[in-house]
Amino acid sequence: MNADAPPERLLLGSGPSPVPREVLDALALPTIGHMDPAFAEIMEEVATGLRATFATANRATLPISGTGSAGMDALVSNFVDPGDRVVCGVHGLFGERMADQLARAGADVVRVEAEWGRAIEVERLIEAAREGLDAMVVVHGETSTGVAQPLDGLAEACRERDALLMIDCVTSLSGHPLALDEAGVDAAFSGTQKCLNVPPGLAPFTAGERALAKLAARSAPGRSWYFDLSLVLSYWTGDGGRAYHHTAPINLVYALREALCIVHDEGLEARWARHERAHEALRAALGGLGFERIAPEGEALWPLLAVTVPEGVDEAALRRSLLLDHGIEVSGGLGPMAGRAWRIGVMGAGARRQPQRRLVSALAGELGADPTDALAALDEAWRA
Amino acid sequence: MNADAPPERLLLGSGPSPVPREVLDALALPTIGHMDPAFAEIMEEVATGLRATFATANRATLPISGTGSAGMDALVSNFVDPGDRVVCGVHGLFGERMADQLARAGADVVRVEAEWGRAIEVERLIEAAREGLDAMVVVHGETSTGVAQPLDGLAEACRERDALLMIDCVTSLSGHPLALDEAGVDAAFSGTQKCLNVPPGLAPFTAGERALAKLAARSAPGRSWYFDLSLVLSYWTGDGGRAYHHTAPINLVYALREALCIVHDEGLEARWARHERAHEALRAALGGLGFERIAPEGEALWPLLAVTVPEGVDEAALRRSLLLDHGIEVSGGLGPMAGRAWRIGVMGAGARRQPQRRLVSALAGELGADPTDALAALDEAWRA
Repeated sequence: MNADAPPERLLLGSGPSPVPREVLDALALPTIGHMDPAFAEIMEEVATGLRATFATANRATLPISGTGSAGMDALVSNFVDPGDRVVCGVHGLFGERMADQLARAGADVVRVEAEWGRAIEVERLIEAAREGLDAMVVVHGETSTGVAQPLDGLAEACRERDALLMIDCVTSLSGHPLALDEAGVDAAFSGTQKCLNVPPGLAPFTAGERALAKLAARSAPGRSWYFDLSLVLSYWTGDGGRAYHHTAPINLVYALREALCIVHDEGLEARWARHERAHEALRAALGGLGFERIAPEGEALWPLLAVTVPEGVDEAALRRSLLLDHGIEVSGGLGPMAGRAWRIGVMGAGARRQPQRRLVSALAGELGADPTDALAALDEAWRA
Repeated sequence: MNADAPPERLLLGSGPSPVPREVLDALALPTIGHMDPAFAEIMEEVATGLRATFATANRATLPISGTGSAGMDALVSNFVDPGDRVVCGVHGLFGERMADQLARAGADVVRVEAEWGRAIEVERLIEAAREGLDAMVVVHGETSTGVAQPLDGLAEACRERDALLMIDCVTSLSGHPLALDEAGVDAAFSGTQKCLNVPPGLAPFTAGERALAKLAARSAPGRSWYFDLSLVLSYWTGDGGRAYHHTAPINLVYALREALCIVHDEGLEARWARHERAHEALRAALGGLGFERIAPEGEALWPLLAVTVPEGVDEAALRRSLLLDHGIEVSGGLGPMAGRAWRIGVMGAGARRQPQRRLVSALAGELGADPTDALAALDEAWRA
């Protein structure tokens, strides 16, 4: 190659997450055409794998050709009409972002907020729905705070009003318990660079019949041609022949297929359980070094451990040392948590004992602390 | 790997184009974080390489995180306001698509058309501009017909009216003469899967000061958060620290960097000249087999040779044989040309004698023709 290779990093931040060798190998398979019958087979395998991972029977399940935030744009531009009353849960940066996108789409946004670091009480979302709504959107896995949002009762509240329930599960998909059909979710988007361990560039997406019926009933096409599901679906799920829409990111689709095989081989529930164990193990180890989890019991998002940084520690300098001297990436806090919190990824191949040991050892070293107890706590939690 | 590998294909269709081994290798380099200082260096190299390839000094030059059509969405959602009068050249599918996207954005679209297979007379575009306009958009390289659109005089006509000139150069970038600043283009988008030989998933994009001034003067944010250049640029060109927007498709950016090195090593003008020679060579060879170029002299787009299929040939069956029996992809016609035209890519690594010889030999074999003369014509044109 002409260009210098990037350094090796252990990616334990908020994403991208560690990409297994076999996924990188799949990425580098020879490119074929987006209308090649051999690619159609691969698309079908990917759609099937995504359905299993979302735990949905939705035929309209596919990767949107962009990163996680493109999934948000696709969700809003297809299922929210100007003037729609949309209840939007906001308890972190990604809820804020969703509210921003909804406003851009001309929605009447009803914000239901919780402080950063806490889940939103579902009763308050349900209460807001009682006043009438066309849709409700919540962030299931809030990457900015490490909080998982309960969904109990939301689907019923939405259906009573003939409204759609839609979620952002960018960070939770395959790393935190979530069964879309069981939860009554009408549409959802995710990202590949979190628990699926695929390089960024695709947004797994699914939509059920109620959402598609709303799209079909539109009087005018949506504002985005690129994200228009009525066109995208004719390519991804076209019966009796796929119609060309845009050129799919072929090689990223190969990588996603490989990653979905890995999820399938492990099993979805076993994978969720591993993420919980990995989260608790790292939490125990970091607690011993003075980093305390922000999310209270019962609200933690397994794939993202957000912790407070001990008083007196220059967190930016410490993160920089971890990155440049140890090759380990962790992420800083965002918004009100900037400068006082860290966000540590517990995602897929990163939710394993060995990479966590590397982080704990390096961190203890930088802090001038003895790592023995922290590592013992980590090991004990993994053995449990 | 778990999953079956796709077949090897020689990609001589309308794109994706053949991806060199070193670009695939770059794609599979270890993923690092989108905020990693090492990635910031790579971003800078990519921006520099793209500026050279577009022949522009525009600081706002970057790959949009989606395929070529995402570049179209980004162009329209940033630089076209509802109610804008936009002159749109339509002489093929991609002009139609642009007109569709403009209408979705609420523009008053003034179509200036030419028949498929011909360029639009610039006088007609200039005439339409005289009646007043906010922007003009033309497709420089019409992938559906293999026609290159002259831009002479368009920039002056737009500037007189304080309007923006914007182009789609998805298929022409680095394969057909185009110097953006010299042509007075205010904004442009491309795709990586054509003459750059990178797998699909990024849309090279550039915008000059006049376009950015229009964006900055907006009273309300654009309809798309994902494509909002005022946010994207704070990540891609942020002075004194890059601000997180979305997670860039890291590995595709590696691949693009490698491809831009290849362009740089060859030199832009030499690359244009090679595409012209490759186009003429293949045209001569295919002419001997009864496939005649559709674009008249002076209107041909070097990277895409659109040809008529000889009478009596079942073009779909023949393409299928080429693909499945010979592993060679060529593309069929679109719209009014479906069933009677082929579109053959002459793009980057595909614009070489050897892959063209493979195509000509296979095609002659399928037609039951002696390939000798066609191959001789090819070789002679390459030697010229």
